[in-house]
Amino acid sequence: MTDKPSRANGARVLADLNALRAIGAYKTGVHKPTFSEPHTQSLQWLVQRLPEAGLAGEIDGIGNILGTSTKPGPKLLAGSHLESQNHAGWLDGPLGVVYALEAARIINRDPDIDGAVEVASWCDEEGHFGHFLGSRSYVGGVTEADIDAARDRNEDRSLGEALREAGLAGRARALYERGRHVGYLEAHIEQGETLESSGLKIGVVTSIVGIWQYRITFTGEQNHAGTTRMAIRKDAGLALARFCVTIDERFPAACGPRTVWTTGRITLDPGAPSIIPGAAEMLFQIRDDNPAVIARLEDLLHAMAAEVDRQGRCSVAVERLRTGAPALMDASFQQAIEQASAAIAGGKSLRMPSGAGHDAQVLATVMPSGMLFVPSIGGISHHWTENTSDADIVTGAEVFVETCRRLLMQ
Amino acid sequence: MTDKPSRANGARVLADLNALRAIGAYKTGVHKPTFSEPHTQSLQWLVQRLPEAGLAGEIDGIGNILGTSTKPGPKLLAGSHLESQNHAGWLDGPLGVVYALEAARIINRDPDIDGAVEVASWCDEEGHFGHFLGSRSYVGGVTEADIDAARDRNEDRSLGEALREAGLAGRARALYERGRHVGYLEAHIEQGETLESSGLKIGVVTSIVGIWQYRITFTGEQNHAGTTRMAIRKDAGLALARFCVTIDERFPAACGPRTVWTTGRITLDPGAPSIIPGAAEMLFQIRDDNPAVIARLEDLLHAMAAEVDRQGRCSVAVERLRTGAPALMDASFQQAIEQASAAIAGGKSLRMPSGAGHDAQVLATVMPSGMLFVPSIGGISHHWTENTSDADIVTGAEVFVETCRRLLMQ
Repeated sequence: MTDKPSRANGARVLADLNALRAIGAYKTGVHKPTFSEPHTQSLQWLVQRLPEAGLAGEIDGIGNILGTSTKPGPKLLAGSHLESQNHAGWLDGPLGVVYALEAARIINRDPDIDGAVEVASWCDEEGHFGHFLGSRSYVGGVTEADIDAARDRNEDRSLGEALREAGLAGRARALYERGRHVGYLEAHIEQGETLESSGLKIGVVTSIVGIWQYRITFTGEQNHAGTTRMAIRKDAGLALARFCVTIDERFPAACGPRTVWTTGRITLDPGAPSIIPGAAEMLFQIRDDNPAVIARLEDLLHAMAAEVDRQGRCSVAVERLRTGAPALMDASFQQAIEQASAAIAGGKSLRMPSGAGHDAQVLATVMPSGMLFVPSIGGISHHWTENTSDADIVTGAEVFVETCRRLLMQ
Repeated sequence: MTDKPSRANGARVLADLNALRAIGAYKTGVHKPTFSEPHTQSLQWLVQRLPEAGLAGEIDGIGNILGTSTKPGPKLLAGSHLESQNHAGWLDGPLGVVYALEAARIINRDPDIDGAVEVASWCDEEGHFGHFLGSRSYVGGVTEADIDAARDRNEDRSLGEALREAGLAGRARALYERGRHVGYLEAHIEQGETLESSGLKIGVVTSIVGIWQYRITFTGEQNHAGTTRMAIRKDAGLALARFCVTIDERFPAACGPRTVWTTGRITLDPGAPSIIPGAAEMLFQIRDDNPAVIARLEDLLHAMAAEVDRQGRCSVAVERLRTGAPALMDASFQQAIEQASAAIAGGKSLRMPSGAGHDAQVLATVMPSGMLFVPSIGGISHHWTENTSDADIVTGAEVFVETCRRLLMQ
C-alpha cells in the first residue's frame, strides 16, 4: 500500500458527463424526468460502464443501480442520481455518479489500495414520483403500498405503470446490507454561490438542512367583486399578501444566520377575476440545520396568525405538512474531504451546510455519510443554464477520488 | 285606458321562482351552467309559459328566448337570464325573467293598457362561454367566428358542440329590430347590502359601472429554495405580495366614493414548494362609473410598478386586458321606477349604480334601458346562500309590473 494521492482522469470525467448530457439534451441542459426514455437510457449507459470499474450491477426493481465489487477489503459506497428536474441542468445528479464511477475505475483496479468503491445511482432523488424514492427503497423505507400509491407529477401514470414500461416490474429491489460499507460519499454542485464568490473549490458539507413545510390557509368571505364595498370585504387573498409581507419583515430578527424561507405556491379560491377570494392558501417552507431556530420561527408564525384572527376579518390556520430533521455529515468524512482538498486543491475548501436535500441524508440514517460540493456558476441550479467550469469539475473529481482513497485506508 | 296601478300576483311569482329553483337544485341554490341539462330544461319551462302571457317564442340559435306579442301599441322588452354561476343562487337571473313574465301576463291581456311587454331570456350572461353572449348576439355583436372560438370554462367543449348537444345548432339567432321597443327593463337582486342595511325596498339603477381588468406580471429570478441566501433572492412572489399591500395602502386616497378593486387570481411560476418563484402574475380589476377615476388609479399602478423596477430586484409590467365603459341607465326609466316605487312601495327606493355587470348594459347600446334592484339578504350573491325575503320579492314584482305599465303609457 502506498500513500501517493490517486488522481482522477479529468478528460475521462468530462467526456462521461458530456455523454450523459447528450442523452435527453435540452438547450445547454437536459430534460430527463424519472423513467422517461432519456432517463432509462442514462441508466443503461451506466450499467455498461460498470465492468470498466470492476463492478457488476443491473437496474433494480425501483430504478436503482448498485455496482458491486468482489475485491477484498473495505467497501465505500458512492453515487448520486441520473434523472433531472424538468428542463434542468446537466450536472445535478450526473456529477456525483460520474465522480463515483471514476473513483471506482481508479481505486478498484489499484492493487496498492485495499478495498473498493461501489457505485450507486439512486432513482428519483428529484421526486417526480416521490423524493429520494431510490435511496429510501435501499434503506428499507419504501413499501409495496408506497409504490402502488406513487404517481408521476409530470403525466398521468402510476409508478407501477412506469416500472412496467421501463421493463423493471417484478425485479428485486437492492437493499442495504448492514456492515458492508464504511460509509457513503456523494459529490454535488453547490447550487449556491458561496464557493464561487469566495474563490474556493470544494465545499465540505457539515449537515444537510431540515425542511419544514407548512400550508397556511386564510378564510374570509367570498363575494361579488363589483357589488361588495371595500369597507366590508373579507378578502382572504389580501390577508395572505399581508401575511407574506409580515413574514419578510419579522423573520430576519428571529432567524439563524443561514435560515431561508420561501412561499412557493399561492392559490386564491375560487380564483376568478370578478370574485373576492373567500379562501386562500400558501405553501411555505423553512430550511435550517438548527431545530431550535425552526421552533422559534414556527412560534412566530402562530403568533402572526393569532394577530390576524384578532383583527376579525379573516382567520388563519398554520398547518405543518412536513418535518425534515437535519442530517449531520460524519466528522471523519468531513476531515477526509478537507485533507484531500489540502493535498490536491491547495486547501481551497470551506465547511458549509447544504441547503438542498440529497440522497446522502437518507444514507446517513444507516451509515456514516459525507458530501463534497464543487462551485456552481452564478449559484444557478434546477435550470438548464446550471453550470460549473471544466477546471472546477476536474478539481472536484481529483479531490473526490483522493477522498475515497483516504476513507478506504482509514 | 285607466291610471290604476297594475298589481303583480305575488303567489304566482314565488311559485314560478320556486319551480325554476327545483330544476338543477343545489342546496338552497342552483347549479345551472350554460347549456347544462338543468339550464336547457329551464329554457323549455319558459317557452311553455309564454302563451299564458300572450307571447310566442322559441329558443334561438344561441340559446336566447324572445317572447313576442302581436298586440298593437308600444312594446317594452324585459327580461334577464336563466343559467347560473356554478353552485350559485336561485335568484340571480330568474328573478328578472319571472318579473318580466309576470308583467307580460298582466299587461298583455289588459285591454286598458295600450301595448305589450315582450319577454327575453338572454343566454350566458354569466359567461360560461362568454359574458353577455346572448344579449351581445341580439344586438349584433357576436359573429360566427366568435361562436367557433368560444369554449366552456367548466368542461372541455366548444360552444358549437354545446349548441349541437342542446339541439340548437343551425337555428337562426334573434336580432334586434330598430324601433320595435320603447326600451329594455331588467330586475335583479342588488348583490350588495345597501338596500337591506337602509331598510329600503327598491334600487333605481343610475349606471352600470365599467370594469377595467389588468394582468400585472412580476419577473424576478427562479432559484433553489434551499441554497439561495435571502439577501440575493429576486422573489417574484414576494414582489407581488408587496404590490397587493401597497395597492391597499394607496388606492383609498386616489379612488372615488364607490370604487372597488379586487385581486381575484394569483399565480406563482413554477409554483413548486422548493423553488423561489421567478415569475408571478395577478389578475386585478377596478370598477367605477367614472372613467376619470380609473385613469387616476391606472396612473398610480404604473407609478408603483416603476418604483418596484427602480429597486432593481424584480420588474413589473401592468397590462390592461379589458376596458368596460360604464353604461348609463335612461333618465325616464329611472323616473318610472321611482314613481312606481312611490305608488306601491311607499317610496322606499334609492338611486344607486350597479357594481355588477348585467345584460342591460348591452341593451343600453341600442335602446333606452333601465334596471331595478330588490334587496339581497346579507348582500350575498354568486353563492348558493344568496336570498331575498318573499315579501321583498313580491314588492319588487309589484313595482316592476307598475313600472312597465308606466313606461308603455308614456
